[in-house]
Amino acid sequence: MNLTVAQLSESELLARIFPRLHAGTTTLLGPGDDAAIIAAPDGRTVISIDTQVQDKDFRLLWPNGSTSSGFDVGWKAAAQNLSDINAMGAIATAMVVSLTLPSTTPVGWVEDFANGLSAAIVALGAPQCSVAGGDLSGGSELVITVAVTGSLNGLDPVLRSGAQVGDQVAVCGNMGFSAAGWALCESSIPPSAHTPAMAQAAALFARPVPPLAAGPVAAKSGATAMMDISDGLLRDAGRIAAASKVRLDFDSSMLAAQAEKLMETAVELKENPLQWVLTGGEDHSLVSTFPASQILPEGFVRIGSVVSVDAAKSAVTVDGQNFEGAEAGALGWDHFAV
Amino acid sequence: MNLTVAQLSESELLARIFPRLHAGTTTLLGPGDDAAIIAAPDGRTVISIDTQVQDKDFRLLWPNGSTSSGFDVGWKAAAQNLSDINAMGAIATAMVVSLTLPSTTPVGWVEDFANGLSAAIVALGAPQCSVAGGDLSGGSELVITVAVTGSLNGLDPVLRSGAQVGDQVAVCGNMGFSAAGWALCESSIPPSAHTPAMAQAAALFARPVPPLAAGPVAAKSGATAMMDISDGLLRDAGRIAAASKVRLDFDSSMLAAQAEKLMETAVELKENPLQWVLTGGEDHSLVSTFPASQILPEGFVRIGSVVSVDAAKSAVTVDGQNFEGAEAGALGWDHFAV
Repeated sequence: MNLTVAQLSESELLARIFPRLHAGTTTLLGPGDDAAIIAAPDGRTVISIDTQVQDKDFRLLWPNGSTSSGFDVGWKAAAQNLSDINAMGAIATAMVVSLTLPSTTPVGWVEDFANGLSAAIVALGAPQCSVAGGDLSGGSELVITVAVTGSLNGLDPVLRSGAQVGDQVAVCGNMGFSAAGWALCESSIPPSAHTPAMAQAAALFARPVPPLAAGPVAAKSGATAMMDISDGLLRDAGRIAAASKVRLDFDSSMLAAQAEKLMETAVELKENPLQWVLTGGEDHSLVSTFPASQILPEGFVRIGSVVSVDAAKSAVTVDGQNFEGAEAGALGWDHFAV
Repeated sequence: MNLTVAQLSESELLARIFPRLHAGTTTLLGPGDDAAIIAAPDGRTVISIDTQVQDKDFRLLWPNGSTSSGFDVGWKAAAQNLSDINAMGAIATAMVVSLTLPSTTPVGWVEDFANGLSAAIVALGAPQCSVAGGDLSGGSELVITVAVTGSLNGLDPVLRSGAQVGDQVAVCGNMGFSAAGWALCESSIPPSAHTPAMAQAAALFARPVPPLAAGPVAAKSGATAMMDISDGLLRDAGRIAAASKVRLDFDSSMLAAQAEKLMETAVELKENPLQWVLTGGEDHSLVSTFPASQILPEGFVRIGSVVSVDAAKSAVTVDGQNFEGAEAGALGWDHFAV
């Protein structure tokens, strides 16, 4: 029952993984050769890479007694990579996966990872995307890297640099739920004591649900700039502002409406839900800009507008004012911040 | 002088890395957005992923006093990934790179890594290949993952499964030099005491030189099967044998001719050079099969022939006999073997 990866040969372990990997419709050659071959119907391939590290990006056991199962880590690996493709306005075509595993890793954890990765691909709405190949390594801690490819299907990509003064700023997807779920994991409140709202936040932290249909729809609807919120709204909006040489001004009432959804959990943890909305990243929602006259696509909510750079103000402001006590660039996730 | 990654913000570190990354000719959108965009001129993208882990795939300091510099690790990351594309008969178009870095990692090591990665791309003959994006994470040990894409430019890929009975088996590139270099690193012979032959082996271990021109040439010359030797000739030839449902029979005199090149180093280390030739992987040379009548492309050397499966014999034989004391599957590199 406690079979570990050290007790299997590499080929035996692969034989347990391969049947669990989702086979989509875009792979011309799947796992088993030196490389895979993916369809690139419009002559372009979108590509991104993302890594999760044990005890940095997830814990196998959290302070409140929650665990990150292999399924959860696989789901999150899929979600965060699919989200990067979504944020370009593209649809995912394939993933290649590198697993660095301590020798003590249970084989069941790895099988569960493959199940979660594949389940997320289908459940999040990317069934065309195949797991096309991968690599196994030994190491002292779990490190999971996924590279993902996508197709724009003839559309122009939606970059960070296209926001225009006068545009409206909109978001699509959950805001701050993953951050609230993380705070619960780090708290002393066990999962058994979760209210329904807490359980929802915890579930969305373990298995984020990025709005994968929304990226290509936004691209077709004339989005001028777009990115996925992986490091927090303020930080990522600041990146659009910098790339587009504009300022993004948020409407505090719209932010408050988002924060209100997290109020019950925030009160319980004595946290500020607005902080989760502004700095929580791993919901992998979209922040986009659209022309002012554009009717927003379904699922997008207006949260502000694109205005001119003002030397006295930060790249992202709220009701025209610098966000109190926190510059955009200093908030959100930084992998090496001490 | 001892600036570490923990003393820089992520964007400050990226600002030091980006200018060092090679920009090839195939990237439609490079680093800086949610994803990169790569040209896929024939409507297909070849893709592979490979990982190096500190103290598994390389040591920063070896027993004989050698060091693996950032440049070396970057070079090897490029070489082993470019080789996977080469082994399909394709040319590389782009890389995305994930670095997991301990907080104590010197910034200079990371800069050196980026320099080595880019230098190898150009020096190995893949100047069209761009470093198109990446990801930075913190962790307790260095883990470097590269995913690489390639283009077949209208050719059929050369798979492992196409070897036919009667074909000749050929190799292109160095055989066992990397293994000899590894043995030197693990020995007590300091680099200062290396003979020219030892220095060559050590250099090819630190910075392998896969024959990148040879893959597409072999594909055009009718290669029926091909792979890169990353886990050792016996093990990888066994994979061609299994995928093609044939046996590969090597000529001992041809193997001995390869081993002879390593004799001086082997004598010094009291090792068997034939073992290096048969089980050493990281030269990233090519093993290919060609029709018997085909004149081998430049650089390829015949080492045997493709024969029928024989239930009494292993998948790879030497002069028609099972290789003494070592089945193909049991030799070569296994990441989890205890």
